[in-house]
Amino acid sequence: MEPIRSLRNPALQRVRALRRTSERRAQGRFAVEGEDQVLAAIRAGAVLEDLLVREGASAPAGAGVEPLVVAAEAMDRISAVASGSRVIAVVRADSMPQPPAGLSGVGLVLCGVSDPGNVGTLLRTAAAFAAEVVVLGAPSADPTAPKAVRAATGATFAVPTLAVDDPALAYPEARLVALDAKGDRDLAGCDLTGPVLIALGAEREGLPASVRDRADVVCRIPQSDRAESLNVAAAGAIALSMAYRLST
Amino acid sequence: MEPIRSLRNPALQRVRALRRTSERRAQGRFAVEGEDQVLAAIRAGAVLEDLLVREGASAPAGAGVEPLVVAAEAMDRISAVASGSRVIAVVRADSMPQPPAGLSGVGLVLCGVSDPGNVGTLLRTAAAFAAEVVVLGAPSADPTAPKAVRAATGATFAVPTLAVDDPALAYPEARLVALDAKGDRDLAGCDLTGPVLIALGAEREGLPASVRDRADVVCRIPQSDRAESLNVAAAGAIALSMAYRLST
Repeated sequence: MEPIRSLRNPALQRVRALRRTSERRAQGRFAVEGEDQVLAAIRAGAVLEDLLVREGASAPAGAGVEPLVVAAEAMDRISAVASGSRVIAVVRADSMPQPPAGLSGVGLVLCGVSDPGNVGTLLRTAAAFAAEVVVLGAPSADPTAPKAVRAATGATFAVPTLAVDDPALAYPEARLVALDAKGDRDLAGCDLTGPVLIALGAEREGLPASVRDRADVVCRIPQSDRAESLNVAAAGAIALSMAYRLST
Repeated sequence: MEPIRSLRNPALQRVRALRRTSERRAQGRFAVEGEDQVLAAIRAGAVLEDLLVREGASAPAGAGVEPLVVAAEAMDRISAVASGSRVIAVVRADSMPQPPAGLSGVGLVLCGVSDPGNVGTLLRTAAAFAAEVVVLGAPSADPTAPKAVRAATGATFAVPTLAVDDPALAYPEARLVALDAKGDRDLAGCDLTGPVLIALGAEREGLPASVRDRADVVCRIPQSDRAESLNVAAAGAIALSMAYRLST
């Protein structure tokens, strides 16, 4: 069969439209690029609705949907990655891991982390350290944005996310440990055993008052005075690795 | 005076050319965008050779060079940032902090970390945890690339870098602690007191054999089996925070 060349093809149009947050929200779908990521989606049991494969590339097995072969040039045009992709899948958001009703271990709370790359990297780190959920307080970036999915390298399908207005209310049974450059106590002296939520704020704005006020403790990561602050993904990695160490 | 509107203006052409690695290397100069970053350069004593200020914005004090006012549209065209910049400076690379001749504390070694965003984030983390140098083993990204400078948020001017072919030979007096997902020992049990070099490899390729073979110990960061691996910037943050904790 001839590969698809026209950008007017309905499947190609569907993928392109999903670059927009509004479209992802309206449709309840998002796009996943790259073989590793699509395989992670399939392994996690996500429901794929479109599967586009670049001419000459092979389709991942077990997708549960007929692959469409797309000409290289058309594939490059619909890809959100500069270097293009060999495989792109459309995934139904309601087939993603669902947030737990209650927390027994560690959850990560992101308050207004607006860079999708940081949100994706933190999802990846959350998976590495067995966090049970990532709670996204507004206005955090959409974890299904192309840049977030790419940075998560498959963790999109391993850790459930929960978008809420007030993250301080998400899991009332958990202790709330807030991380802040001006925190009272060294994080290493804080109780990070579950159920616990570790909250990180936006790089410039820091934590919202609602989270700071509800926090059981506000901790800091000791650092030299040579730098302004840690990147939020670096701070999250340090905190989650400490919590994981305590849990094992 | 009328703001500069023409992209043929020599100063604007110089800035644009510096997006290319070859040009930065040939000229020994690089561009810095944004007020915070330019101020960090000035505070660190870096030599600025061009200072472009967007029409209506104010010029940072102490630059030591006459600011040129640039029309908003021309400024957006030469900016490497999608959202544009209010200030862009050209910095002489030889006015940057120079690597120490010997190591007494902690140094970070990056082996083939090719993403400039990761290199920049790791520079920022190295500054936060008072690392004395970041050794860049080929083919690591150029720390003066626009994306690296942006991710470093000023740390470009706080931590010296040293680009070498074989990072294992850079500081022979230092213990070499290699980090690897398949390491023999838990990093928390490793001696990270100075002089010590902590080596991280590329995300896919891992550490080169030369570094692995010369390493005094190969450590791992314990993590769940749910994720493939940590992002290199996350691994670096965890290791550097541990070393910093031991040094204070």
